[in-house]
Amino acid sequence: MEGDKASSGCGSLVLLNCFVSMFGNRVRIALKRKGLAYEEKPENLADKSPLLLSSNPVHATVPVLLVGGKAVCESLVILEFIDEAFAGSGEPLLPAAPCARAHARFWASYVDTKLPQCAARVWKSPKGAAAVEEGKKDLVAALKTLEAELGAKPYFAGDALGYVDVALVPFAPWFLTYERLGGFSVAGECPALAAWAERCVAENACVAESLPEPEQVFQFVCGMRRMFGLD
Amino acid sequence: MEGDKASSGCGSLVLLNCFVSMFGNRVRIALKRKGLAYEEKPENLADKSPLLLSSNPVHATVPVLLVGGKAVCESLVILEFIDEAFAGSGEPLLPAAPCARAHARFWASYVDTKLPQCAARVWKSPKGAAAVEEGKKDLVAALKTLEAELGAKPYFAGDALGYVDVALVPFAPWFLTYERLGGFSVAGECPALAAWAERCVAENACVAESLPEPEQVFQFVCGMRRMFGLD
Repeated sequence: MEGDKASSGCGSLVLLNCFVSMFGNRVRIALKRKGLAYEEKPENLADKSPLLLSSNPVHATVPVLLVGGKAVCESLVILEFIDEAFAGSGEPLLPAAPCARAHARFWASYVDTKLPQCAARVWKSPKGAAAVEEGKKDLVAALKTLEAELGAKPYFAGDALGYVDVALVPFAPWFLTYERLGGFSVAGECPALAAWAERCVAENACVAESLPEPEQVFQFVCGMRRMFGLD
Repeated sequence: MEGDKASSGCGSLVLLNCFVSMFGNRVRIALKRKGLAYEEKPENLADKSPLLLSSNPVHATVPVLLVGGKAVCESLVILEFIDEAFAGSGEPLLPAAPCARAHARFWASYVDTKLPQCAARVWKSPKGAAAVEEGKKDLVAALKTLEAELGAKPYFAGDALGYVDVALVPFAPWFLTYERLGGFSVAGECPALAAWAERCVAENACVAESLPEPEQVFQFVCGMRRMFGLD
């Protein structure tokens, strides 16, 4: 349990996570941003713990946030939960106005609908497969769409980190992997988005403390690819 | 504009929808349940209106709820918007407690993650393709998972229609199509879920008034299949 943090008031908070998971790392960022005390239990996704399997029997994956022993699953659902259950701790993730909340939810949903699927074709396909090139093309298109939505704002939410930023920024440590396997440059294709990702880390301790090094992600993926005979 | 309904207080409400859309019909149900006055503009998805394309440029699909001219897109996002913007009208869709809200959002997300993809393999695949059988198997498994979550409750939300019910019930008029093309019976596989779907219609005018006849859906799908040469 981390010391000197706000008490949750809902019982102890335990996060089941894997250090490279963009979904689990969203929850890390949100918990740290709210200044909530929590314990993290690392999961090996190749050998899942009985606790993970029993607390998320439907999807059997991270993240799970155990709240006084009760499981809350699915990363965006957990972000909303944290925002609602701990409304008194720190800045809210979502804005107050219903239209602005809908706008933020739309873009977080866009991230989840597009990025994992496009990216998976880049890093889970056999070397040289047509799927890599197709996945890269769709991934770049999705990143460009996100960059257009960011526009000239420092953050998706405006002047400070918000819900869409928290949903998207854990993909940033994966950019290096996408670039090496897909043969492109995120900064070259989407300079404003690359600058946004750097800004998120540089200006927000909750982000900097939550994300793995890009090289760590790449080595993790290389291990996965060797295991599945993709190279 | 329908008469004798609560005013939205946010400007006029216009729903861009297609009568068979399970996503659009979620919004219909929510608007009717809240007693909100709205205008519906039917969309032909084979020839989308300039209004649809300009108001949902990212996904270019229904539903779109225009709120005083401002577009809110994505059906679950729209349901949350309606619940928040019109909190004073009718019963809320989501429960009050953060854990219960997370539970409902988890299951609505499950519906969106599983059902459309499984069902599409059943009704969008060429006759006799292996994908039909695989899609049917996954669809039945997903429906059984939902039936287990329903348990002995009358509604997913408990004693009355709630968020998960509204998210799922617009799939019910499609069951006949899945059954005819997949060669199975929803009531045979999931009797409690089939009874729940009938209960939703029988006990809730907002549902009964919002859904197409199953035979209409089947004829619509047959037309699509002819157009794409799938039979």
